[in-house]
Amino acid sequence: MGRIICCGLGPGDPDLMSVRADREIRAATQVAYFRKKGRPGQARRIVEGLLAQNVCEYPMEYPVTTELAFDSKEYAQLLADFYDAWADRLARLAREDNVVVLCEGDPFFYGSFMHLYSRLQGRAELHVIAGIPGMAGCWNVVGQPIALGDDVMTVLMGTLPEEELNRRVNNEDALVIMKTGRNLVKIRRALTAAGRLEEAWLIERGTMPGERIARLEDIEPGDCPYFAIVLVHGRGRRRELCE
Amino acid sequence: MGRIICCGLGPGDPDLMSVRADREIRAATQVAYFRKKGRPGQARRIVEGLLAQNVCEYPMEYPVTTELAFDSKEYAQLLADFYDAWADRLARLAREDNVVVLCEGDPFFYGSFMHLYSRLQGRAELHVIAGIPGMAGCWNVVGQPIALGDDVMTVLMGTLPEEELNRRVNNEDALVIMKTGRNLVKIRRALTAAGRLEEAWLIERGTMPGERIARLEDIEPGDCPYFAIVLVHGRGRRRELCE
Repeated sequence: MGRIICCGLGPGDPDLMSVRADREIRAATQVAYFRKKGRPGQARRIVEGLLAQNVCEYPMEYPVTTELAFDSKEYAQLLADFYDAWADRLARLAREDNVVVLCEGDPFFYGSFMHLYSRLQGRAELHVIAGIPGMAGCWNVVGQPIALGDDVMTVLMGTLPEEELNRRVNNEDALVIMKTGRNLVKIRRALTAAGRLEEAWLIERGTMPGERIARLEDIEPGDCPYFAIVLVHGRGRRRELCE
Repeated sequence: MGRIICCGLGPGDPDLMSVRADREIRAATQVAYFRKKGRPGQARRIVEGLLAQNVCEYPMEYPVTTELAFDSKEYAQLLADFYDAWADRLARLAREDNVVVLCEGDPFFYGSFMHLYSRLQGRAELHVIAGIPGMAGCWNVVGQPIALGDDVMTVLMGTLPEEELNRRVNNEDALVIMKTGRNLVKIRRALTAAGRLEEAWLIERGTMPGERIARLEDIEPGDCPYFAIVLVHGRGRRRELCE
């Protein structure tokens, strides 16, 4: 059995990946990464300049079709077949030499690699290297602690049903909202209803080229940024110890 | 104005700190870190072998006294004076050369450095380097994704009042419970009431020497591990895409 090493790349700045991931990526002879068809791919961009000259690259291009809705059963089947095929291929490649799989952020935190990880159990020696989650890169560039003292922090997806989003956002503590994009209008409504819109930040491409940090209330409706996360900072319960 | 650079050290394994933090720590001539009086200190242990030979070390020892309760007004004042004094000293040291402050995990995620950060505003050029949060190191060593798909993830402190802890834990999604120690009995009661005890993991010293990974239900009552986090994994909403 060969080794498949999934390297968490962190939030985007290559300098923020771990020493171990950096070492594995520089030594790799076979590198695989997800990307959208026709795009260079975010994960690949992060490792630009780190890969060895003789590396074999395997872009794993998501099956795209405009005929099927993203949440349809057919699309789910298409994706399952795609993961099945790549799991087979990576298991075969690993018999020749180690395979490094690139993963933005932290692989065990909402990472796509998990679809391969479950399929590869028992078929290769699997290693996963933790990375700084994208959200941590985002709260770092805002320059304020996301949570302090006894704050509760809730991580939510903008794809949640509106009723649940409203309920979860109605919270006095720290909030992280991912998968924004076209859900931003719904997220803004929920934060407004909870009285927290004026505390909310929108961070686009945090720690990456083209980074943008803005107050959510200043974002034009209809602006649907990519790689964007909404943050509402905790207030630091037990204030007396926190200034 | 000199530079004060707070380096997030990640969960404990020195190989998991960022490339940038590693570089700053190796180049440092002045290094400061918190520790308990009479202890070597966790942050200092992580950088063992990385520091330059001629480095000046500044252990910032928490004021300890057995006369005062940890949550008393007097103890809070003692801590505030301690942070005031160290902010003054670091600002002075930074005029000579850069000062690197070590911080376990990610500095903006429940990090003690924030007590200095707020006091040092405008008195030095402040830089904070993100790190892998301790919790991410812990879910990595368990080897299962903490959250997938549309899972909600809630981060809680074991120090919360029992009524609130019970309410927050009564949740079908991913849970991270920090500040365990003597609160473990209360945490176990809350998870039992929510019907989630058998899914809960306890990770002690995750990614560090002496690491222990156990089912929470198998931990002896009365066992109060240090540096321990309780994890309950999300189930991956939208299962059809997640296997």
